Amino acid sequence: MSRVSSVCDVEDTPEDRYFLNNPKPESLDDLILKTSNFMNNCNKSENNDKIVLVTSGGTSVPLENNTVRFIDNFSAGTRGASSAEQFLFKGYKVIFLHREFSLQPFNRHFMRFTNVSFLDYFDSNGEIAPKYKKELVEMKRLSDLYKDQLLMLTFTSVNDYLWALRSIAILLNNRNCIFYLAAAVSDFYVPYDKLPEHKIQSRSEFQDESKKKHINESGKLVLDLDPVPKFLRDLVQTWANNSMIISFKLETDPNLLIVKAKQALENYNHQLVIGNLLDTRNREVVILSEKTADETWIRMTDEELKQTCIEELIVDNITQRHTEWINSSD
Amino acid sequence: MSRVSSVCDVEDTPEDRYFLNNPKPESLDDLILKTSNFMNNCNKSENNDKIVLVTSGGTSVPLENNTVRFIDNFSAGTRGASSAEQFLFKGYKVIFLHREFSLQPFNRHFMRFTNVSFLDYFDSNGEIAPKYKKELVEMKRLSDLYKDQLLMLTFTSVNDYLWALRSIAILLNNRNCIFYLAAAVSDFYVPYDKLPEHKIQSRSEFQDESKKKHINESGKLVLDLDPVPKFLRDLVQTWANNSMIISFKLETDPNLLIVKAKQALENYNHQLVIGNLLDTRNREVVILSEKTADETWIRMTDEELKQTCIEELIVDNITQRHTEWINSSD
Repeated sequence: MSRVSSVCDVEDTPEDRYFLNNPKPESLDDLILKTSNFMNNCNKSENNDKIVLVTSGGTSVPLENNTVRFIDNFSAGTRGASSAEQFLFKGYKVIFLHREFSLQPFNRHFMRFTNVSFLDYFDSNGEIAPKYKKELVEMKRLSDLYKDQLLMLTFTSVNDYLWALRSIAILLNNRNCIFYLAAAVSDFYVPYDKLPEHKIQSRSEFQDESKKKHINESGKLVLDLDPVPKFLRDLVQTWANNSMIISFKLETDPNLLIVKAKQALENYNHQLVIGNLLDTRNREVVILSEKTADETWIRMTDEELKQTCIEELIVDNITQRHTEWINSSD
Repeated sequence: MSRVSSVCDVEDTPEDRYFLNNPKPESLDDLILKTSNFMNNCNKSENNDKIVLVTSGGTSVPLENNTVRFIDNFSAGTRGASSAEQFLFKGYKVIFLHREFSLQPFNRHFMRFTNVSFLDYFDSNGEIAPKYKKELVEMKRLSDLYKDQLLMLTFTSVNDYLWALRSIAILLNNRNCIFYLAAAVSDFYVPYDKLPEHKIQSRSEFQDESKKKHINESGKLVLDLDPVPKFLRDLVQTWANNSMIISFKLETDPNLLIVKAKQALENYNHQLVIGNLLDTRNREVVILSEKTADETWIRMTDEELKQTCIEELIVDNITQRHTEWINSSD
């Protein structure tokens, strides 16, 4: 491709080729500007601020360029939004890179409840209903209090996410930074040059001429997705090689959780993996470290869950490790 | 399959086989009960109520039984939620069958704005900010006013949707009813007996043994989806054969819109197709009728869009046709 041949000093890894072949999102320049400004404000303070990038929510994988259909990863964004709150409470500055319309810190307490819609919070005079008022005032207070410590950034597609992650990582790379990668990122995608321009038609006679292969003779849709290059390797080795990197493993099969989490640590040599099962993720996680063979389980009882959320315990554990990590470099 | 052979009087169409082979959602009994109660209340009034089923939002297609990944159809639910409001204003009772967390009537004016989160509507005392108060009080008033005329029902997957549509149609089938099918329903799905139990693994060694075919040698994900049977035919011919049925065509390619809309009318023999293009759907639609060769275009200028939404004009047109349709049966 001409775009590749014009860039002579680029290594020819799948990760490099990804950014050459999949266009930069229009919103990226604005995201970089916002991140730079946020970092500048952090640097002005005298505290040698600790910063965490929290990624949250699922990425989408468009199946058409004029996107009608997409593949999505289930994630409301609870882990990320709740953890972001906890990092703020611990004095961190938080960059919250999240899927548009997924749960947000503080706001999450009023979002995505099946039986409560926006107008249900109000009485007919437009006043907040008494039973919600106390929590609302408290969350508004916290939201205002941490306003300048929290940068909200969004993505939709996996392409948005990968460009954003690389850009932020390069701006952020030092030992005072944590990458807390709670987003549910697709393992597969359709490369830009294979995306049909228009909606995939259910009858083959209306297929985009160049893309007829999508529907086979028996009327089935056959989708063929490429693996997303392993960006965690670039993050650990290059983009953020001075930062503390924490990835997440979500599995549904208990037999695979530990083996897959350990494999991730071996493959990428980053600092921590947090493993969780879909069914029990709100009450049980396991933290695996590169340095020790041990697994730290965090498990909560029903009683404990009434008092706090598991993210308080996770972030408490993580920030202690981060302090040790910073000190270990002295 | 034993489940098929035990039901002797079932015709062996793809649609019949669908309901035999894809299990009833757990929530269906509750949905049927709510719909029956709503219909009973309608029948108690002396006005021979007009009823519309509005479907809204996109269906999801799970790729795993413990769903982490799914295919989704883009739809915020604006057309459906806004049209539901207009039908209420015209005196209809509205059954609003929508994707969970998609836009809802009246609530939609405060949902899914990129730059306004829930807490942004409030000041630090927990009072609604003055600039939003007037609209909030008005929408709350309308929401309360039409409370008993509006039944809210939800779906997530295409399977939820199809079971719900069939059940509601059979309860609702008479000339006073409109089926206004604005939901974006997937054309493809993974049949229940082909769904992997667990999350599809990106490395073939961790694949569910019975489903190894998902990942090929080069690490690509190959998905093979069956066509969703053509339920519109059953709706028109059987389930709701006395009701007025309106389907929607969303296309991204202007060259296909009219030809595909006409083809739908020919294939299914229902009353109306409303066609729209993804880019211009908020200001331009075309209504095609079974009876006449003409296409009715509704187009709005920038000035007109400041005054009202296109759904007011669409529903005005539809309800006039519905009155004629009812009278034509006398």
